[in-house]
Amino acid sequence: MIIVPEREIAALMTREAAYDAVETVFAAMAAEDAYNFPVVREAIGHEDALYGFKGGFDRAGKVLGLKAGGYWPNNLERRGIINHQSTVFLFDPDTGRAHAMVGGNLLTALRTAAASSVSINHLARADARVIGMVGAGHQATFQLRAALAQRPFEKVIGWNLHPEMLPNLEKVADEAGLPFEAVDLPGLTEADVIVTITSSFAPSLMAAHVAPGTHLACMGTDTKGKQEVEAALLARATVFTDEVAQSVAIGEAQHAVAQGLIAEGDVTPIGAVINGTHPGRRSDEEITLFDGTGVGLQDLAVAARVVELAVEAGVAVEVDF
Amino acid sequence: MIIVPEREIAALMTREAAYDAVETVFAAMAAEDAYNFPVVREAIGHEDALYGFKGGFDRAGKVLGLKAGGYWPNNLERRGIINHQSTVFLFDPDTGRAHAMVGGNLLTALRTAAASSVSINHLARADARVIGMVGAGHQATFQLRAALAQRPFEKVIGWNLHPEMLPNLEKVADEAGLPFEAVDLPGLTEADVIVTITSSFAPSLMAAHVAPGTHLACMGTDTKGKQEVEAALLARATVFTDEVAQSVAIGEAQHAVAQGLIAEGDVTPIGAVINGTHPGRRSDEEITLFDGTGVGLQDLAVAARVVELAVEAGVAVEVDF
Repeated sequence: MIIVPEREIAALMTREAAYDAVETVFAAMAAEDAYNFPVVREAIGHEDALYGFKGGFDRAGKVLGLKAGGYWPNNLERRGIINHQSTVFLFDPDTGRAHAMVGGNLLTALRTAAASSVSINHLARADARVIGMVGAGHQATFQLRAALAQRPFEKVIGWNLHPEMLPNLEKVADEAGLPFEAVDLPGLTEADVIVTITSSFAPSLMAAHVAPGTHLACMGTDTKGKQEVEAALLARATVFTDEVAQSVAIGEAQHAVAQGLIAEGDVTPIGAVINGTHPGRRSDEEITLFDGTGVGLQDLAVAARVVELAVEAGVAVEVDF
Repeated sequence: MIIVPEREIAALMTREAAYDAVETVFAAMAAEDAYNFPVVREAIGHEDALYGFKGGFDRAGKVLGLKAGGYWPNNLERRGIINHQSTVFLFDPDTGRAHAMVGGNLLTALRTAAASSVSINHLARADARVIGMVGAGHQATFQLRAALAQRPFEKVIGWNLHPEMLPNLEKVADEAGLPFEAVDLPGLTEADVIVTITSSFAPSLMAAHVAPGTHLACMGTDTKGKQEVEAALLARATVFTDEVAQSVAIGEAQHAVAQGLIAEGDVTPIGAVINGTHPGRRSDEEITLFDGTGVGLQDLAVAARVVELAVEAGVAVEVDF
């Protein structure tokens, strides 16, 4: 079997490859050629860790397996290693044998950023020029880099609960040769595209902060109780997601659905837009909102691509298992 | 991280080591120092395969991880490899990092056999001399070998739906220098211990086939609908299991509970007997019945032991992951 250690991923995986892998598997999900398994997520009662498994099977791409791992909140402080730790395991769908093991830490950031950039490519206005960020942590930098590839943006604006982190965003804007401006939340009405990437349990971005025609990618909500944007915003928007069942249960849509503002049937898988079975954006006034909850098939898709790239590059470790 | 390929397991793992690992983790489960996660089990719609994950965390033993894999029914015929394919992945519970990957095929057989032998050791009469087998497939040979170590048995008797497979049992009896006798089902009243290990969806062994004082280990039922013994037998017996929730949902106890013959509270974790918080067998007339459903923690326990043995023996493959 093939092993691709975490340290090799950065040199192998590109944003473009992550984009292609995630777009393809979203399309397969909407076509019912790929599906995610029930998620296992456990507070194990040790080190305050959350641990679990996200699995799935992509019949079209012949990719089967899971991401295992989770969140160890004391890692950085106590051990100098990152708190999110994950590993992807791929299996041969023809035989059930283990096929590959791939470091999942950087891949998780890349596949999450790829999801919002897929939504921007398919749903943002073609003339979008200002991108707004809500959130300025480590993940936000991945999100911004991936987003900038999707439109000829001319300006980055951003808000964060802790403004001292905004230089993270400014640095990415600088790299891209774009001006950066810190704004308050109402200032986000200037944005044509907004990416929210926080781990908030109360909404920051209100409906009044969003101009008509905006595309939002809400990427931070992946748990019951988390919330980034006002539920009324989902009622005003056309809502898309990676996986509908997860969106209404643990995604940003959970609140609007619970409040009766929208129904499960109002949430469309982004794969339907990719496949052309849903028209996507219908007007320059429409607000589109992508609820990115994160599914195991995204992890499997980017991991499968990395395995190919590692073999091509001759850096895959082969073990006779 | 450490890799122990499937081919190394046979030379590393003993029945005794499997027994100790499984007995210890059953005790930890009953003491609430270890628990299993929800099981993921999916008919993936490809190759008629069943695939899934059984995870858990043993706080006492500091073992965290999962077994992934399943059943590929065409493997043997089409590819010459076994149909049950599984791999165990262990994680460092302090950091969430992948710690070890271990071939899980032989381990699954050993841990399943260890479970019934733990039950025989703790629940069978001390003067048990005749062991009866219901089932004569590949798994049955593992079961019989492990059982024979628990009492000074003097005779093996066996029944199988397909009698042409009974020589599998006879061979194991021969190895142990014991006589083997093929019997019909009523002939099993001669047995002091009975192990059932079939994949039946209707009961073979009836209450009338079981003498007072017998210990039964029912090892074949791990799915809704499967059944090896008459439900009335559970009403007559004192029922033990590996995990109560699984026993009443997908184990042999599912039928007796569904028919109202016993309640969930009538099923005792075997770990309570190991820990001495339940007295186990109370008389020579009592029928005891162990409902072995198979839990992820068994897999993790034997895999963790194999990793230690592989490192000691110098055959572990170390990969800088």
